[in-house]
Amino acid sequence: MIKTDILIIGAGPTGLFTVFEAGLLKLKTHLIDALPQPGGQCSEIYPKKPIYDIPAFPEILAGDLVSNLMEQIKPFEPGFTLGERAETIEKLEDNTFVVTTNKGTKHHAPVVAIAGGLGSFEPRKPPISNIADYEDKGINYFIKDPEIYRDKKVIIAGGGDSALDWAIFLADVASEVSLVHRRNEFRGALDSVEKVSELADLGKINLITNAEIVGLTGEDQLEKVVIRHKDEARGEEFKDVDAFIPLFGLSPKLGPMANWGLEIEKNAIKVDNSYDYQTNIPGIYAIGDVNTYKGKLKLILSGFHEAAIMCQSAYQRINPGKKYVLKYTTVGGVEGFDGTKKEAKKEVVQSIGV
Amino acid sequence: MIKTDILIIGAGPTGLFTVFEAGLLKLKTHLIDALPQPGGQCSEIYPKKPIYDIPAFPEILAGDLVSNLMEQIKPFEPGFTLGERAETIEKLEDNTFVVTTNKGTKHHAPVVAIAGGLGSFEPRKPPISNIADYEDKGINYFIKDPEIYRDKKVIIAGGGDSALDWAIFLADVASEVSLVHRRNEFRGALDSVEKVSELADLGKINLITNAEIVGLTGEDQLEKVVIRHKDEARGEEFKDVDAFIPLFGLSPKLGPMANWGLEIEKNAIKVDNSYDYQTNIPGIYAIGDVNTYKGKLKLILSGFHEAAIMCQSAYQRINPGKKYVLKYTTVGGVEGFDGTKKEAKKEVVQSIGV
Ligand SMILES: Cc1cc2nc3c(=O)[nH]c(=O)nc-3n(C[C@H](O)[C@H](O)[C@H](O)COP(=O)(O)OP(=O)(O)OC[C@H]3O[C@@H](n4cnc5c(N)ncnc54)[C@H](O)[C@@H]3O)c2cc1C
Ligand SMILES: Cc1cc2nc3c(=O)[nH]c(=O)nc-3n(C[C@H](O)[C@H](O)[C@H](O)COP(=O)(O)OP(=O)(O)OC[C@H]3O[C@@H](n4cnc5c(N)ncnc54)[C@H](O)[C@@H]3O)c2cc1C
Repeated sequence: MIKTDILIIGAGPTGLFTVFEAGLLKLKTHLIDALPQPGGQCSEIYPKKPIYDIPAFPEILAGDLVSNLMEQIKPFEPGFTLGERAETIEKLEDNTFVVTTNKGTKHHAPVVAIAGGLGSFEPRKPPISNIADYEDKGINYFIKDPEIYRDKKVIIAGGGDSALDWAIFLADVASEVSLVHRRNEFRGALDSVEKVSELADLGKINLITNAEIVGLTGEDQLEKVVIRHKDEARGEEFKDVDAFIPLFGLSPKLGPMANWGLEIEKNAIKVDNSYDYQTNIPGIYAIGDVNTYKGKLKLILSGFHEAAIMCQSAYQRINPGKKYVLKYTTVGGVEGFDGTKKEAKKEVVQSIGV
Repeated sequence: MIKTDILIIGAGPTGLFTVFEAGLLKLKTHLIDALPQPGGQCSEIYPKKPIYDIPAFPEILAGDLVSNLMEQIKPFEPGFTLGERAETIEKLEDNTFVVTTNKGTKHHAPVVAIAGGLGSFEPRKPPISNIADYEDKGINYFIKDPEIYRDKKVIIAGGGDSALDWAIFLADVASEVSLVHRRNEFRGALDSVEKVSELADLGKINLITNAEIVGLTGEDQLEKVVIRHKDEARGEEFKDVDAFIPLFGLSPKLGPMANWGLEIEKNAIKVDNSYDYQTNIPGIYAIGDVNTYKGKLKLILSGFHEAAIMCQSAYQRINPGKKYVLKYTTVGGVEGFDGTKKEAKKEVVQSIGV
């Protein structure tokens, strides 16, 4: 059982910044995310695109925003349960919570902060009847560690940026990379499209367009895929593979959290924005894109402010009756749980001359 | 009469970011500030100190935060009335407002956003009976343009960072710089204290400690100051000067705005945080440090979020009935009023191979 002060569901920008605000209040945090990496939409959907409305950044790539947040929260040593979806919640007699993931990992905390964005990102799966049989047995919808594909025969399916980028990356790792796409046209960054084209010409990527994977075979592990060509003359072919990675995008689903007894409105969780972003269940807060209230803006900067306010309320819940006096970071510095301390240079009082 | 869509009182971080959020909605802005430069507390009180809790900046100097904001808002060409205090407000029959400063400058807008922080910064003045007679006639409490002191005899009074820093700066500009302080000890950044000490040794700063300015003389313009030494043996002396700059710090005063009919609580302006940060007078909003509501945190990141929400409501007031659909900056880009356009590189849809 993982124990922490504030259990954060969702490691998007809102969840990450919550670690920092909690840390300033000396509260420990742990994050759960269904994705294999932190950063939420910023990391998963548009890491290489610029954002222009983060305050004091005239321009910042979404991926850099996430790296900066990761650096900022480092002193507070957050725990991470990645690649797992928060599935159930149980309220104990002492008003604390136990949250269990789809893989059975249990987390215990007096406060739960749901920073789940549009929901947990679930991969869109190709409609192949026996696909579930090979999940994690040759089929992955996410690439956690590209090294597992070293010297393997890999087939990627998809026509967007992820498919293009991973095909490029794995061209140097795998013994064979095939990229299968239903059409002949790819949609992505110009660089990526051109690079794939170049690697295809060099024979480093085996490009199979106007085709689909329609079947899977193998004993315990995936061994072959069935490729169906649009061109009827070519029909279907079997192809030996070690790994099949369908990259058809992700769709967020509020999913299990919709059944936690929380008040839901417009597919989001209703909170009390006139005070502390708490939900109808005391001790459970919802911040960032996942919540809703009158005037809500689904912007990154909203999640930051909501996180700061929510942590103050969580502090009261965890330390009842204790009065917290807000200290500016400039004045009080930042004391990490890792023993580091950042602080402004002290002023001196010093005589001159005479 | 200066005309704009949103008249912003206070050019601190909150007021500055309001320009950006308004600009995204194609609303024009104009800022009034009592200080000679934008940036509010960050510029006036701690420009060289680090802040650690601006989201995605593990550390940023307060002065750099302001520069970044100035760069971010540049495309929206805000107007500035600096060095003037908003003094009175008048509501016209068409529900628009006219705000007049202490220098008589008039501003007209359908929406007023008060981002006045702790109030307008007013200099602490030394208790010299006839000091008002020489204000702007040899006496300045702020240094707007250091060039006006070129080849002049300048006397600075004070024992903190501003006094130290300006004495150092003007040592190269003025023909003579004297630094007068009641004590022998200065309180400031170590660098500054050491630098002043060095310049005093070189005779470039005339250091007069354990002394105070107690009198002023001159016909139309300040001509002499009276310096009283603590050491009674030395008594009082007259000194010829062209300029006297008392730098005893600033104290913020909610001041005139306290009499505008706004609901005031704890020396701040009460707003509706459950929706749009509007005050009890429709069309007047209060954002940033200047407002109060249950759970309010006087943090820079709060002002940013409040500004974004407030601008949406202002948009409705200015364009009644028009529906605004939020567009991500990443997707829609940023179109400046100056003709510039920032936008993410477009995706391409392109065939490969075959
Ligand atoms: C293309 C694009 C451009 C954008 N441009 C801008 C912009 O310019 N400016 C701006 O402010 N915003 C922009 N946004 C929106 C911005 O990305 C979101 O506001 C922001 O990501 C919300 O952050 P969050 O942390 O609240 O949620 P998210 O980033 O959505 O993160 C939520 C995380 O929670 C996880 N999660 C959810 N449920 C569970 C569960 N049950 N178990 C485990 N994990 C779970 C998800 O997997 C996800 O990683 C843009 C979005 C897109 C898609
Ligand atoms: C030493 C110090 C350290 C700090 N450290 C941090 C930190 O680490 N993190 C953090 O988030 N915050 C910190 N703060 C607080 C932070 O600076 C404020 O929250 C922030 O400046 C508020 O911004 P604002 O724009 O709302 O108001 P301000 O910065 O106060 O700006 C308001 C402006 O309005 C002007 N004004 C007011 N009334 C009038 C009028 N009638 N006419 C004309 N102009 C007027 C004032 O002159 C002023 O320039 C710190 C503050 C100090 C003093």
